[in-house]
Amino acid sequence: MTDPCSTLAALDASDPLAGFRDSFALRPGLLYLDGNSLGALPRATAARLAQAVSQEWGEGLITSWLGAGWSTAPARIGDKIARLLGAGPGEIVAADSTSVNIFKALTAALSLRPGRPVILSEATNFPTDVYMMQGIEAFSGGRIRAVTVAPDDIVDRLDQDVAVLLLTQVHYKSGRVRDMAEITRRAQAVGALVVWDLSHSSGAVEVDLNGANADFAVGCGYKFLNGGPGAPAFLFAARRHHGATPVLSGWFGHARPFAFEEDYAAAPGIERFLCGTPPVLGLAALEVGVDLMLSADMAQVRRKSMQMGDILIQLMKPLCADHGFCLISPEDGQARGSQVAYAHPQGYEIVQALKAVDVIADFRAPDIIRFGLTPLYLRYADMADLVDRIGTVCRTRSWDKPEYRERAAVT
Amino acid sequence: MTDPCSTLAALDASDPLAGFRDSFALRPGLLYLDGNSLGALPRATAARLAQAVSQEWGEGLITSWLGAGWSTAPARIGDKIARLLGAGPGEIVAADSTSVNIFKALTAALSLRPGRPVILSEATNFPTDVYMMQGIEAFSGGRIRAVTVAPDDIVDRLDQDVAVLLLTQVHYKSGRVRDMAEITRRAQAVGALVVWDLSHSSGAVEVDLNGANADFAVGCGYKFLNGGPGAPAFLFAARRHHGATPVLSGWFGHARPFAFEEDYAAAPGIERFLCGTPPVLGLAALEVGVDLMLSADMAQVRRKSMQMGDILIQLMKPLCADHGFCLISPEDGQARGSQVAYAHPQGYEIVQALKAVDVIADFRAPDIIRFGLTPLYLRYADMADLVDRIGTVCRTRSWDKPEYRERAAVT
Repeated sequence: MTDPCSTLAALDASDPLAGFRDSFALRPGLLYLDGNSLGALPRATAARLAQAVSQEWGEGLITSWLGAGWSTAPARIGDKIARLLGAGPGEIVAADSTSVNIFKALTAALSLRPGRPVILSEATNFPTDVYMMQGIEAFSGGRIRAVTVAPDDIVDRLDQDVAVLLLTQVHYKSGRVRDMAEITRRAQAVGALVVWDLSHSSGAVEVDLNGANADFAVGCGYKFLNGGPGAPAFLFAARRHHGATPVLSGWFGHARPFAFEEDYAAAPGIERFLCGTPPVLGLAALEVGVDLMLSADMAQVRRKSMQMGDILIQLMKPLCADHGFCLISPEDGQARGSQVAYAHPQGYEIVQALKAVDVIADFRAPDIIRFGLTPLYLRYADMADLVDRIGTVCRTRSWDKPEYRERAAVT
Repeated sequence: MTDPCSTLAALDASDPLAGFRDSFALRPGLLYLDGNSLGALPRATAARLAQAVSQEWGEGLITSWLGAGWSTAPARIGDKIARLLGAGPGEIVAADSTSVNIFKALTAALSLRPGRPVILSEATNFPTDVYMMQGIEAFSGGRIRAVTVAPDDIVDRLDQDVAVLLLTQVHYKSGRVRDMAEITRRAQAVGALVVWDLSHSSGAVEVDLNGANADFAVGCGYKFLNGGPGAPAFLFAARRHHGATPVLSGWFGHARPFAFEEDYAAAPGIERFLCGTPPVLGLAALEVGVDLMLSADMAQVRRKSMQMGDILIQLMKPLCADHGFCLISPEDGQARGSQVAYAHPQGYEIVQALKAVDVIADFRAPDIIRFGLTPLYLRYADMADLVDRIGTVCRTRSWDKPEYRERAAVT
């Protein structure tokens, strides 16, 4: 790249996804590199929520459970997410949080592998994944053990004690991508099941759940799916596992919820993985984000994401040499999700100082700066602009302020 | 009541709560008697949600977790609900569904009573309550038994095998009110804990959780609290039980969620009963409903509710005699929650036919018609209007249509 700016402008000019940026409400000048934590607001969401509130709730009132499709929203939106992830109709529902869905998927898998004592994961998995495993262990009365090993030791640890392996496909810090098909095959070879956490995959990388013969998966609605803060998450269960026992056996997972029967009887299909009354307003916002993602070509999304990452890594090299950034994401785009992460001793302060130059990035303890790359609303030229602003912060040492040193609870 | 209409008009004219009706978006002419299933839309909700979407999410983006108070919303709204229910600050969080919160409260109680094998409830409890018990039993590997007995046998069944009693204070069908203080005392006398389901109590009857020495409680945000369809529910844990082990040990219940530690360490206070990322949009709508309820005097709400119920029961007597309605709610207002329910062999068809005369009531299988009484937006005169319209439906037998016989999944 002899003249990065004109190269990037040319890439933007021929970008088949360029038109999507207008579908988001983003302030001019802002560089938002945190769509891997909270996706930007689709412009259509405000009107959709206003309709859900004023017409469906306000006018339709209780009749909207049928009349406005509220009762079928978890399965309807699940079917749409399925099209993004290589799953079939009736294999995904949208509901509850990712954490709650991890619990459902793990306990469902345990019900299919009675007598096997181990839930396996990697020690550096996103914390809530491991925490949910530990909660199951604590409640199991000694029957189940939550075991974590170093990331590279996962496959070696697989044996006939393992009931279920819980892995995140795209690592939340490094962005490293796991080989879903290969690891699933290795786990299934010892009779174990796999729960894939797709929180950093959905809408970010190409996923083919049934192509990989996946067992279960969960994922997040508020990152690359742009479903809004605390959006409902989703759960995938391969059709062959629809006989699993739901532990969170709430009325919306019942075969006949409105018969008000005394005993639980799980719905025959994916609906058995629902629990309580669905979060209608959150689902309405999520559906807008999912629809928007569905209107994009995922292969183009992935290609742009990798290319943006390659460019960013290239442009950051001088700052790595001069200002102590250390790339912790894979350089190979195929092995990297839709983010580029650096370790830096002043990572926290730098993320704070970047806000003053209208860059929102993301810090993860102890020293990681993450740049989330969202092909629907970022431009190639933004990569050069970003590196420019980071360079200014570094050269002027504007991060070196007392007020940036006090770490807040959430960044 | 020699002249019911003028009596009711006089009651409305002197009703201290009359002004609240204007705070709700209700179409003129509609009689909405289903606020016990889905509360009406507060007028302020649309603007609040528009703000949460366009400003907090759209402009504030990820910074709104701190800047707009998203991260503290579950505890903040919990503290507001606590003021409605006689709980202290830091004893309630708003999050997840009622079903999920039942699971949390039951398993927390079980962790405090190790070795006791029984979760006890009544057979006619709201189905999801019993279903969640059955899910715990299925997962417990024989350690825990879900036991249900006839409603009047609850106290007799309490013994030292019982770890936890799960009861709904106001019965979802009959509206019968349980004596929270007395039953709690009886359960605690044998060393058991009690989880109260307040779904039909919150915002409907006066509740004094700490006055009753309650252990745990859960409740629903979308009924009398007018929090919107599928609104987040809430969980109460008395301060003395904040050492209980959360089984749904997600990252938002961690003592330091953003330290991304490898091992779960429960937050010291009520936050340990959070699990996944909070549903921000649902919480925003819920807070409007809770604020509105807080601005009313609960003693006045309860008084009006009982009086409306007494009036309705009185005015319905001719229809009971002539058209087969059978009151299944207590006649005594003190013993009755904020609803009046009748059994009728054509209950389903009548509820359908009432829609044609602009009455929305509620059917519960097999034959129950429920009229929810919501003092914030119903008028005394509505009771006479309602009975009038029911009378028309009965006299003209307008319910006797083939299309009313096919029961839909949700009513």
